[in-house]
Amino acid sequence: MFEELKERVCAANLRLVAEGLVVHTWGNASGLDSSRQCMVIKPSGVPYDCLTPDQMVVVSLDRGEVVEGNLKPSSDAPTHLVLYRAFKQIGGIVHTHSFYATAWAQARREIPALGTTHADYCHGPVPCTRLMTTGEIQTDYEANTGQVIIERFNQLDPAMCPGVLVASHGPFAWGTTVDEAVQHAIILEHLARLAVETLRLNPSAKPMQRALLKKHFFRKHGPGAYYGQK
Amino acid sequence: MFEELKERVCAANLRLVAEGLVVHTWGNASGLDSSRQCMVIKPSGVPYDCLTPDQMVVVSLDRGEVVEGNLKPSSDAPTHLVLYRAFKQIGGIVHTHSFYATAWAQARREIPALGTTHADYCHGPVPCTRLMTTGEIQTDYEANTGQVIIERFNQLDPAMCPGVLVASHGPFAWGTTVDEAVQHAIILEHLARLAVETLRLNPSAKPMQRALLKKHFFRKHGPGAYYGQK
Amino acid sequence: MFEELKERVCAANLRLVAEGLVVHTWGNASGLDSSRQCMVIKPSGVPYDCLTPDQMVVVSLDRGEVVEGNLKPSSDAPTHLVLYRAFKQIGGIVHTHSFYATAWAQARREIPALGTTHADYCHGPVPCTRLMTTGEIQTDYEANTGQVIIERFNQLDPAMCPGVLVASHGPFAWGTTVDEAVQHAIILEHLARLAVETLRLNPSAKPMQRALLKKHFFRKHGPGAYYGQK
Amino acid sequence: MFEELKERVCAANLRLVAEGLVVHTWGNASGLDSSRQCMVIKPSGVPYDCLTPDQMVVVSLDRGEVVEGNLKPSSDAPTHLVLYRAFKQIGGIVHTHSFYATAWAQARREIPALGTTHADYCHGPVPCTRLMTTGEIQTDYEANTGQVIIERFNQLDPAMCPGVLVASHGPFAWGTTVDEAVQHAIILEHLARLAVETLRLNPSAKPMQRALLKKHFFRKHGPGAYYGQK
Repeated sequence: MFEELKERVCAANLRLVAEGLVVHTWGNASGLDSSRQCMVIKPSGVPYDCLTPDQMVVVSLDRGEVVEGNLKPSSDAPTHLVLYRAFKQIGGIVHTHSFYATAWAQARREIPALGTTHADYCHGPVPCTRLMTTGEIQTDYEANTGQVIIERFNQLDPAMCPGVLVASHGPFAWGTTVDEAVQHAIILEHLARLAVETLRLNPSAKPMQRALLKKHFFRKHGPGAYYGQK
Repeated sequence: MFEELKERVCAANLRLVAEGLVVHTWGNASGLDSSRQCMVIKPSGVPYDCLTPDQMVVVSLDRGEVVEGNLKPSSDAPTHLVLYRAFKQIGGIVHTHSFYATAWAQARREIPALGTTHADYCHGPVPCTRLMTTGEIQTDYEANTGQVIIERFNQLDPAMCPGVLVASHGPFAWGTTVDEAVQHAIILEHLARLAVETLRLNPSAKPMQRALLKKHFFRKHGPGAYYGQK
Repeated sequence: MFEELKERVCAANLRLVAEGLVVHTWGNASGLDSSRQCMVIKPSGVPYDCLTPDQMVVVSLDRGEVVEGNLKPSSDAPTHLVLYRAFKQIGGIVHTHSFYATAWAQARREIPALGTTHADYCHGPVPCTRLMTTGEIQTDYEANTGQVIIERFNQLDPAMCPGVLVASHGPFAWGTTVDEAVQHAIILEHLARLAVETLRLNPSAKPMQRALLKKHFFRKHGPGAYYGQK
Repeated sequence: MFEELKERVCAANLRLVAEGLVVHTWGNASGLDSSRQCMVIKPSGVPYDCLTPDQMVVVSLDRGEVVEGNLKPSSDAPTHLVLYRAFKQIGGIVHTHSFYATAWAQARREIPALGTTHADYCHGPVPCTRLMTTGEIQTDYEANTGQVIIERFNQLDPAMCPGVLVASHGPFAWGTTVDEAVQHAIILEHLARLAVETLRLNPSAKPMQRALLKKHFFRKHGPGAYYGQK
């Protein structure tokens, strides 16, 4: 069971390396099997150069127990579970320590919407969580990482901003599938770098025009979209 | 018909990817068939890895109607049409979201002429358009993008500066052919990056000597050019 | 004798080039044979593209004499010897002039612990040595380079911070084996670059929460570690 | 005649492209045949992807006339000639518009000696010329480019600093052979980038200790050198 999803999750993890988003073993991708209420995720600390689909670990969404697989799941698995439970519309999650997105997370700044490249994917800034407290870190750290993300999205729609920066840590991205989550992780890194360079040229650069933000986002998303083929 | 131009336009689009100027589907190249008053352009939102010449879309220059092709043209097609109509001497246009040129566009700054690398191609700064208004964005957005470019070139000669930055958006480059437009997009990105690094070292760096700007531009262009072979 | 270690040290030196940490001949890796109290190190100034295991030089740990090999050892060999004698727990050393770590060394700044990527490997900042004096430079320069490193680690545990920046010079990294030392040199460069980008975005970025630093370091190291497989 | 030197000069030009120092046709390398008092140089504006040894142009050192070859020499040939005549110890010259060195040239700043990587090759800062005057630009521009370099080296030894930055333009590097000149152009670019990153971290970074500068330069150069094999 889960064979097809295991293959896609394994391929997604390998694509993160190929795209330069993951160095060493710093990153993980998971996909949701919503009919069976299970998550398929990369095992913890296994080198990418020998990663195979049958090493993927299946974890139950409700209890967080390993349902299938001989290896321990990624140590960030509890973060993924918390996000799947809260964001009903997502089916894939990616966590990386990619350079520019991680720099924004370490700088504890949200990524402002500075131009149309950003607006094509995010209807507003990419938010940054608050710092986690000592208590949240010492007990259930990984699950609490998910909680501060949910807290940050209290007034936001995860479908209108497919990623977040966890302060002092790094980015998480999501999508309706694990493949889309990978795509969003790639784009998030690109937007992070583009915003860095923009602020280098103009440290007081203002966010883009509100009308332009709406125009570009809804040109690609929602019922009025006209970008791409039918 | 248009077979040769379709092949060149398709190859031009693929070269943008190979040169690292286009990420995802963010970019498009078009070429003009001036005898038949038609533009050949990339289809909208089609992945680059399966792009073929027969997918290119032929659009009439006067009415902007699809003359040949089964796919929708690039959503930026109206911008290309406006530029071909206004800049009589050009035969190819390229739009990208390349990193450094887009950073300048997002910073809403023109790229100053800081050295001979720049002067070999642009006889002055690479200009940046004004911000588009809410009205211009909400109605005929893509055509109006072309209009603000033309407005910016009111006192400028497109043959002496083969590109522009659209504020909050990104660069457009052009040339006498689609191949030359690609070449200019590559060079524009290079100049953008070089200027960023220069300002990092010297935030108050002054434009180059006027005589040197003229010398290098006219060493390569116009009747007195002596660079290259006969 | 030493054949296996020579192969590993040669491969380690070549990996430094493949990973982009070494330009020209600027760098060297060594490994320790603790049972025979000898160090195997790269020869001095030999081009990497024709480096072979039998060119590696074996040097005695106590007297610093060549025990095996026809070539002169790396001119930095005395630095390596001083470190092996002082840091009993290490078995491999790597010295490079990698970009970002060298920039920190030239800027004479320690690399602060700004996020979890850093905390996974270093339990605190990556320290920078004091400037060497004219006397230390003119006499026994290479051995004194080792001495200022040891002086800097007076209150620090080399096992909790696998590298150092030598002011006006560049990084040294170490590990229990030469392979781990290479891995740490790669990670040190990554952390150096990540910290540069973070400070660009927020020049007054504060070190990460103390509890988070501990959490991430000890999630991977020591008796309570739970990252990775058993 | 000149066959061997033509091959080496052609290979040197191609290596500049492979090393990423030359974009488009912006760069040229030449070598000196001192016995015959001729320079072999790349032709002007010929694409690198079809460059062959027999296209190289032979120019007489004294009169600057084409002695062999069917193509026009590089438009920068007069600069090369002026340098060969003035710097008796050099046998190869390379000119590029490489990123970081050109950024320093455009910023009109010399590259300070900030660490041992620099000191291994340059016994002091890499100097930057003064701005050329309108008169110098309008008449004999390329020869005058050589003259401002010589003027800048009035009190300097070209053997102790194998390159220079021409203000508002870019770097020239040299060596005893064309291969060494290429090597120095590569290293100059590396040093330029390293210094940029250092100043980003510490805008008031001071030059390295004088004793360390001497130590590293003379560890590699001159009668007391002990780096490398005999």
